[in-house]
Amino acid sequence: MNPGAQPPKIYVGPQQNPQVLDAVKEAGGEVTDNVADAEALAWFGGSPKQFLELDHDGIRWVQLPSAGIESWFAAEIFRPGKVYTCAAGSYADTVAEHALALMLAGLRHLHTLAGERTWTRVQSGTLLESTVGIVGCGGIGRALIRMLTPFGARVLAITRSGTPIPGAAQTFTPDRLDDVLIESDVVVIGAPATADTRHLIGARELGLMRSHAWLINIARGSLIDSDALVEALRSGSIGGAGLDVTDPEPLPDGHPLWDAPNALITPHSANPSQLLIPGLAARVRENVARYAAGEELVGLVDVARGY
Amino acid sequence: MNPGAQPPKIYVGPQQNPQVLDAVKEAGGEVTDNVADAEALAWFGGSPKQFLELDHDGIRWVQLPSAGIESWFAAEIFRPGKVYTCAAGSYADTVAEHALALMLAGLRHLHTLAGERTWTRVQSGTLLESTVGIVGCGGIGRALIRMLTPFGARVLAITRSGTPIPGAAQTFTPDRLDDVLIESDVVVIGAPATADTRHLIGARELGLMRSHAWLINIARGSLIDSDALVEALRSGSIGGAGLDVTDPEPLPDGHPLWDAPNALITPHSANPSQLLIPGLAARVRENVARYAAGEELVGLVDVARGY
Repeated sequence: MNPGAQPPKIYVGPQQNPQVLDAVKEAGGEVTDNVADAEALAWFGGSPKQFLELDHDGIRWVQLPSAGIESWFAAEIFRPGKVYTCAAGSYADTVAEHALALMLAGLRHLHTLAGERTWTRVQSGTLLESTVGIVGCGGIGRALIRMLTPFGARVLAITRSGTPIPGAAQTFTPDRLDDVLIESDVVVIGAPATADTRHLIGARELGLMRSHAWLINIARGSLIDSDALVEALRSGSIGGAGLDVTDPEPLPDGHPLWDAPNALITPHSANPSQLLIPGLAARVRENVARYAAGEELVGLVDVARGY
Repeated sequence: MNPGAQPPKIYVGPQQNPQVLDAVKEAGGEVTDNVADAEALAWFGGSPKQFLELDHDGIRWVQLPSAGIESWFAAEIFRPGKVYTCAAGSYADTVAEHALALMLAGLRHLHTLAGERTWTRVQSGTLLESTVGIVGCGGIGRALIRMLTPFGARVLAITRSGTPIPGAAQTFTPDRLDDVLIESDVVVIGAPATADTRHLIGARELGLMRSHAWLINIARGSLIDSDALVEALRSGSIGGAGLDVTDPEPLPDGHPLWDAPNALITPHSANPSQLLIPGLAARVRENVARYAAGEELVGLVDVARGY
């Protein structure tokens, strides 16, 4: 904090989570119960609609609680002259762990063996010396690269800029998606949900994937064309799909993805709440300290780009 | 090889696997089709009984094809004056990968979610910052430690000697098993099957484990008392069990382990054949080179200890 400056007054809510409150105080912020007094909001436990009811001109900075913020764009909460930060990256380790769990389960056939009641034979695949494509390699992708390093996996990363990602064998811009799909034994989707990324993986892209390759989605369901994925799984043109997110979501009972062969679906549980809160609290702690010191915040929302 | 020395004559069989044959040649050995001429055997694709029919006094060194060799002890193949090596350690990476797959699947509830046809709620566990006990920390355990490092997991290793294992937070002798069971979020069994390790994990030991802890067995089924494990799973006194090996094995249809809650069973598939052969070939290559050079071999069998 600047010497002599007043601590910033921050409203945590509408749900006053004790870990988030403590994070604000530990970082030198002053928690206020009165949102009208606050110059910043650490939002937790409420909807975009509730947010719009509490937001006011005195609020200069808003910390959003999730990493993917497409619902906040849909609710049109963003106002000029304010700074918005999201939680992108703060749940990276736990979501990357879930991605690794899904890919290992797929390669080792755990999704089918879990339902067996008889001793069978299977031919497992491996991540050892494999090629893993990470489409949208942000915080989750970087955490996943660290987890893949002991396997000697070769990571092909795609980022908007194409700036080399540490630990990736190659980093490409999005126009090289086809090459990554063709070469990868596992394709991990980690890009944000925007108008540009909707159905990024459709029938044509699935057709480029190797017949043993698994597609893992721990980002947002809208990035994959669900109908095309069902067809690819039914025809066996890809090895399988590990999906923590779906389109639609929740996936309704009777949707054909439930019964598609080699689909392993988890109910958006990559970032369970007992792991979510410590990650959010850490982000709040860091950003309150930076805000108080007048430094640039982490997880800045790019309102023009939509994430 | 010693300068001027003849290349050692080695019989590969009874199945003449091309990768194993190439490994012998690449390391400077001479492959012989006539076992009577051979001074060494690289055994592949046959039973201990077939081995005893081919063994003769001229054989000075035998390379066995598996890591666990209790069936070779049961068949009493070992003769004084010969050197025996096994494949211990050469499949370590792929078996460690399977152990990681089982523990992540358990913590992330993939074993139950795989069978769901409706969107549910689950509270996942994590390896991040967890404590993992490795009971019998040899080659597989060391490979697993490398894979656990990115998770910040604290590894408690047990080895016969207690000599510190690199990367483990603490290494204990077997008399400290209880402490490891009490503290661990995941317990991995990696010890060899001997008379001493039979039912190492029984009702008393299961009772020491944490109620959320998973027990992973990628070693041999006999190390765990199956009846006690079924009871622990039914009562919920442990979190679950990921078993690549069982007792009896193959696990017969109708065995209560099949239907025990939170049991995830794979059919001894941690080391699938397409991954097994490269590992064995690498071990043969190394040992033939060492044998030709008169150096100590890798994976020496300790006949007195039984592994």
